[in-house]
Parts: sequence; structure tokens; C-alpha cells
Amino acid sequence: MNDVDYMKLALQLAESTRGQTTPNPMVGSVVVKDGAIVGMGAHLKAGEGHAEVQALNMAGDKAAGGTIYVTLEPCSHYGKTPPCADLIIEKGLKKVVIATTDPNPAVAGRGIEKLRKAGLDVVIGIEKPKADALNEVFFHFIQHVKPFVTLKSATTLDGKTATVTRKSKWITGPEAREDVHRYRHTHDAILVGIGTVLADDPSLTTRLANGGRNPIRVVLDRRLRTPISAKLVQDQEAPTWILTVADPSLKKREELEKFGVEIVQLSDDSIESILQVLGTKGVTSLFVEGGAEVNGSFLKAKAVNQVITYLAPKLFGGHASPTAIGGEGIDEVEEALELDIAEVTKIGKDIKVVARVKGSE
Amino acid sequence: MNDVDYMKLALQLAESTRGQTTPNPMVGSVVVKDGAIVGMGAHLKAGEGHAEVQALNMAGDKAAGGTIYVTLEPCSHYGKTPPCADLIIEKGLKKVVIATTDPNPAVAGRGIEKLRKAGLDVVIGIEKPKADALNEVFFHFIQHVKPFVTLKSATTLDGKTATVTRKSKWITGPEAREDVHRYRHTHDAILVGIGTVLADDPSLTTRLANGGRNPIRVVLDRRLRTPISAKLVQDQEAPTWILTVADPSLKKREELEKFGVEIVQLSDDSIESILQVLGTKGVTSLFVEGGAEVNGSFLKAKAVNQVITYLAPKLFGGHASPTAIGGEGIDEVEEALELDIAEVTKIGKDIKVVARVKGSE
Repeated sequence: MNDVDYMKLALQLAESTRGQTTPNPMVGSVVVKDGAIVGMGAHLKAGEGHAEVQALNMAGDKAAGGTIYVTLEPCSHYGKTPPCADLIIEKGLKKVVIATTDPNPAVAGRGIEKLRKAGLDVVIGIEKPKADALNEVFFHFIQHVKPFVTLKSATTLDGKTATVTRKSKWITGPEAREDVHRYRHTHDAILVGIGTVLADDPSLTTRLANGGRNPIRVVLDRRLRTPISAKLVQDQEAPTWILTVADPSLKKREELEKFGVEIVQLSDDSIESILQVLGTKGVTSLFVEGGAEVNGSFLKAKAVNQVITYLAPKLFGGHASPTAIGGEGIDEVEEALELDIAEVTKIGKDIKVVARVKGSE
Repeated sequence: MNDVDYMKLALQLAESTRGQTTPNPMVGSVVVKDGAIVGMGAHLKAGEGHAEVQALNMAGDKAAGGTIYVTLEPCSHYGKTPPCADLIIEKGLKKVVIATTDPNPAVAGRGIEKLRKAGLDVVIGIEKPKADALNEVFFHFIQHVKPFVTLKSATTLDGKTATVTRKSKWITGPEAREDVHRYRHTHDAILVGIGTVLADDPSLTTRLANGGRNPIRVVLDRRLRTPISAKLVQDQEAPTWILTVADPSLKKREELEKFGVEIVQLSDDSIESILQVLGTKGVTSLFVEGGAEVNGSFLKAKAVNQVITYLAPKLFGGHASPTAIGGEGIDEVEEALELDIAEVTKIGKDIKVVARVKGSE
């Protein structure tokens, strides 16, 4: 076991908490003394102990003289918990191995400085690319104060989302549909347009075999047409935010608020304004599930960080069959949003493609 | 080295001739005597020696008492060459190992019968699935007297073939475009609609680094609008057939025929009729390169055996952006053409999907 091995373990501990630490990052930590692991931990939930605290608690007296591995630079400031750098010094560790530094430029390096001043041996950058990838959503949010946006679509191999008569159940198989629910589980919020609400009356909850965390349901509804009878108003299973530029009547507002729906009034409903508002409200990750008009608006605004596309082994054909991304489109090939394919896999009988938008981070 | 090893070698020899044996199948053969290979061969070109003849020629006197491996049942009838079954008997071989039987039900088993009657040990079915897959196009043609149809498309990840202003150069990268030329090389004919000829003026030739075989260029041109100035009329680099239901004027006919273009008059231009005509003219494999209307017609007629789709890591968006398969489309999800994904690979920066139409062979 060397530094890389222990850091990989710490990264696994962090990864296991995906979906439950927001708005905090996922962090894992391992404490090693005399070639044996004496402590392991991860940050489980915002407001609870940091990964280093958990690992050092497990290690107890054995931490003194040992090495602590942590996937993210230990904090140096008083937040909801005391600074981890202080705790590491206090517990008498000799060496600290860090995968990546704090994404907040205002405090990056301060924890490291504190540790070094106290005479500890600090190693930085072990498994850095994996640590950065692990928390890309959090890092994006810290830097931009806007959510990391994932655009999801499910189409036939010829790019259609429905038949010419708008039938779409089901294009993809159960494995792909379950995968979508895993993404809902790990996202702070899910966004659809009012068109999708009126057409499909979706609940937009996470329905996995073992339950799952429901994202906040965000509806873009310029003219406030969401019916009181809509599932995402009635079921009260997750917060529902309706983003609108309309000035709702007191009656409509009261009716919606009775079901716990929050009406967010925007001065303009550009995608940029929407992301700023969501960022300010603490939404770190946004899962965009369309329809075509909303997807087209996000594309036009170049407000997409990641694309997840499921392709079913079917052909619908038809000039009038809808596609995943509508809107105005572009005139020249060079204006296209360029992607890097990160992953292509079979999922059930379907194909899953994960792609990152070039230059987006 | 056992029977499977030698048959695999024979299959490799056959595979190496892809694109040059049409309308004959690809066949490979290996002759083994006392544990050593004494002859190898493949059928290289229609009208030339069969694989067994080539392998037995190389073996010479050493064939006597040996074993011959052949990927397809030896013929028993006089065609352009004498029956291979007779030659095998004459050369004194003791054993014949065959991967798969003749696809023509009228003659299947006759070669085997002849060999067994002469006292040879005949083993059938070694590597049969691979041998059947190798010649699926030929087998399809023999059974249906219609070409095996491959529908090719190249789209963005969101299913578009051009921007809203019909710009499409280039969607895919050089590797994917080169791959298309490999398919042209291995197909008897390539088919496009008149819309594609008028919009793009394509040459539809095979342009690979080492040249390549040009397919017959088939244009569906109901009203005979192909201009004399079109590249595929002028260049005379490959046969061009114009399929039409129009009754051309003598002048237009003479002008086109002067450039070697063949006008094929159809009583109706249903896809079924077109495939029958092409089959009768000896076209065993057809590569359909669109446009959207032609692709839609092939889909509607369920006249597709294989689908090859290249997906570029780009998003165009746009309601008005064209897609690969147009036409009328379907009303119900259950009417979709169902595929089995045979292959998903990265090709350059693009994704290549090869899919077989379910129940098609």
C-alpha cells in the first residue's frame, strides 16, 4: 500500500456519499499508522462532521505520529464545524497527503500553509484528476455560483423523442429509465418546461428500488399556467418551484402556496438569469429533462456542462416526429456546441452516451 | 492446431477478399497433411477459381490423403468452373471439414452427399456462426434475390443532419468519413434520391488512400430531373443507373446514355419493386445514403437489414434542423423498426453504431 492506494480508498469513501452531501463537496479520509489503517471516514451530510473529523475519531489515540489522507484540502476556517487543519495539528499527525486544493480561490492553500507552519510534512496532488472529477459539480458551483447543468435526452437511434402522433412510452428500456432516476437522486434540482407539465403531468420524483432523494422540481412557466391539479403541485413529495415572469393573482398564488409550491418571480426569464437565481438559492446541480423548447433554450444560451443521451435500438422516422433539442437552432456548423465523449456504454438494450461540453468546467 | 484453428484460418482468408468476390460469396480453404499446412486459398473474383481449387493447386501431390477445410460447402455442379466436390475426390483427400452448407436450398447438401458417397469423411458445422455471418449478404441475396440493404446516416448527438440553414460540412470527423468509403468499397451499389443529387452533387465514388472499388450509383429519380452536368453523369468513374417512372424524351435519354448512364424504367417506384429490379440485375448489397425522404421510404417499407449510424460529439438543436430519416413516420411506438445493437465503438471523436434489424436476414 502506497500513497496512491490509500488516496484511492479515500476517494471511494467520498464517492459513496454522492447525492447526500450537497451543498458541500464529497470528501473521504484515511488515517494510517505504522503501515496499517487506523481510521476511515467521509463527510456524510452538510452540517455534520468533515471527513477528517470522522477518520480521526475512529483513529483515536493511534492518530498521533501517523499520516492522514484526505481528498480535499483541510479547511482552515470556522464554519459549521471547527477548522480541520487545527484538529490534524492537535492530534499530532506527522504527514498530510492531499489530493486537490480548495476550489475557492479566496481560501485555497490556507489550510496547507497552516499545516506546514506547524511542521507537518504535506504532500499535494496525489490522484488530483480523480479528486477534481469527483467534485466537478461542487467546484463549478463555488466558482460560478450557478448550478452545473446536465442535459438529459432519450431518443431513438434516429434522434426522435416521439412518433408523429406524440407517442413516447416507452422509447428506452427499464435499465435506462432506472439510470435516469439515479441521476435525479444525485441532483439538487430537476428542471422542465410548462409544456412538459401540461403534456405529461410528470411527478419528477426519484423512484428507485431503495427509494432515493427527490430533487427540487423547477418548472419554467412564463405565464403561470401550471394547473393546481398537476402531480408536482398535489403530491408534496418534494419542493416545487415555479419560475415565472408573470404577476400571479393573489388567488392563484394562495392556491399554489397552500400545497407548498414556491413561486419565484423573475424580472427576465433568460437561461442566464434562471441559473443565477438557482445558484443564489443554493442549487449546485441541475438536471434538465426538457422538453425540446427548454432544451433548445439551454443550448442556445450555451448553458450546458454535460449531456447524457440514451439511444434506443429503434427507428421511428418521420419529418414530423419531434427531436430532443428544438428551439431556433444554428445557421453554421461552426456554431455547434462541441462535446467530448466521456463514456459510451450499453445499458440494457440501449446505448448511453455521457459527453462533456468543451471548455465548460 | 485442431479443426477449429484451421477453419479460423480459412475464414480469415475468405474475409480478406471482402468487396471483390461479388456476386459470389467469400470462401477460404486450407489443406492439411500430416499436421502441416500444404495449401491455402481463397476465391478471389467471380469467374476465377474457387477457394478449394486455389488451395489444392498449392498443395499439388501433397493433397492426397490429407484434409481440406472449406468455409462453404463445395459445389457439386458445373458453373463457370467444374464442381469442386469432384476435384476433392479426384485429388484423393480423406477428410473434408465444412463450416456451413450451401445457402441455396435447391442444391444444399448435394456436394456433401457426393463426397460421402465417394467414401470421404465429412465434418460439418465447424465455426458455422462465423461462416454464416461472413456471407450474410450473399445468403440474403440467394434466398430473396434482393440486395441486403444497409442504411447509413451521420448525425449530431441530437440527431440532426444539418443546421437550420442546411449546412452539413462536416458533421463527422475524417475517420468516420473514411469508414463510409470502406463501406462503399464493399457494396455492389449505393443509392441516393434525386434530392441529394440536386442539393449536393455528390460523386459517390470510393476515395480511400489505396483507391478502392466504386459501387454502382443508383439514383431514385421519379421525374428524371438528374442534370446532365451532375458529377455522377459526367465523371464516368462508375456505372450510374437512374431509376424512374417517367417516360424520358428521346433527347434526354440520348444525352444521359452518351455518358454511359443507364435509365431503368419502372412501372412503379415502390421500394419493394426497386429492390426486385436491383436483385434481378445482380445487385447483392445496397448502401443507402439518403436523403431523409429516401431513408423514410426504406424505413416505411421495412426494407432495411442493417443500420450504420455515426454520431458526432456536437449539438445543433433547432426544430427546423433536418434529421436522418424523414417521410411519414409512424403513429404508435409499437410500429417502430426494432434493432439489435451489434457494435458500438468510438471512431475518431465520433461514435459508430452498427445495428441489425430484428427478424431480418
